This record gives sequence, structure tokens and C-alpha cells, in this order.
Amino acid sequence: MSYYQKHVFFCTNQREEGAECCNNIGAQWMRDYVKDKVQALGLSNETNHIRINSAGCMNRCDEGPVLVVYPEGVWYTYMDESDLDEIIVEHLQNGRVVERLKI
Amino acid sequence: MSYYQKHVFFCTNQREEGAECCNNIGAQWMRDYVKDKVQALGLSNETNHIRINSAGCMNRCDEGPVLVVYPEGVWYTYMDESDLDEIIVEHLQNGRVVERLKI
Repeated sequence: MSYYQKHVFFCTNQREEGAECCNNIGAQWMRDYVKDKVQALGLSNETNHIRINSAGCMNRCDEGPVLVVYPEGVWYTYMDESDLDEIIVEHLQNGRVVERLKI
Repeated sequence: MSYYQKHVFFCTNQREEGAECCNNIGAQWMRDYVKDKVQALGLSNETNHIRINSAGCMNRCDEGPVLVVYPEGVWYTYMDESDLDEIIVEHLQNGRVVERLKI
């Protein structure tokens, strides 16, 4: 069994000015938003054990901003907090893939 | 099937001076070492599709430095390049878990 029940990685990479990258739309802020929300929902505790991480460039810049949920290896893109709320409730809390955001 | 055949995350977090953290023994350098070696071995190409990433704190500091290989969710600690070479050849190249370094 995986150490974390779900281990989420946000690309929070910042490339040079003008270059397409996940942090151009505030990926670091979005990651912090999800981390706080998951904690508030009690999903990061010993029972649920969901971890929200930042990561360097995951090389899917043209589809970004991206995040990936392991061990299932499901990749998402997102536009705003409402997309992230849907991923939190549907996927992280209830284990259902959000097809419309999947890449 | 997972987008990356193997997706490796190194904790490269640097905490305040004195605090135990993966980067105290040069995790960022070690990650670059593995990334270069995996590329040189042709493991990051379209066929093998292995990705070596840096990540923020993965909250296993007391067992660090740590890395994790997904989608299998196998965690390792390492001391030096020779440990990393073993993980590259055994696990990434041949799919065999290195039990002595597993945490």
C-alpha cells in the first residue's frame, strides 16, 4: 500500500518572463489553496493521509497548469478555485475522476 | 496507463539552518545527478519515459533524504551516488525494488 493514500503534485515551476509555465497563472498560490482546504476537510490526517506537494516542471507545460494525483497517475489541468474544489471533493474525497479536467 | 512509466520525486526542500531536511546532504545536487544519468542511459526518451522531478517537503524528514517512485509508490533513502546508481539500474532500468534502501 502506498505511504500516502493520495499524493498530489502541483507543477509550480516559474520559467523566464513570457515563457509558458504553470506558475504564470499562480500555481503556487493554487497549491497553497488546495493544501489549506484539504487540511480543513481533515483529509490530510492519519486516516485519509492525503499529501499536497509542490514540484518542479513536470514537462507538460503546453497543457498547464497541471497537477497529478498518485498512485493512480491521473493528470488534471485547472483554471480557478472552482475547478480545484471539484477535484478536491470528487477525486480526493470521493475517489471519482473528474473527466472534464483530465488531461 | 500512467503518462510517465516511472515518475520520480526527490524532496529537495531546504529548511532553516540546523533543521533536519533532505537538502542538508545536497538533495538538489543528487536529483540533478540522477536526471543526467537517466538521460544519458536513454531512460527518459519516448519509449522508456522516466521523469526525474524535484519536489517540496514530502514530510518524511526524519528518514531523509528521500525520493519516491510512482506509480508504484516505492520510497527510498540514499546516502551517496552509489546508492542512486543502484536505484537507477535496479529499479528504474530493470524494475526490481532495492530492498536495502527502501523505507
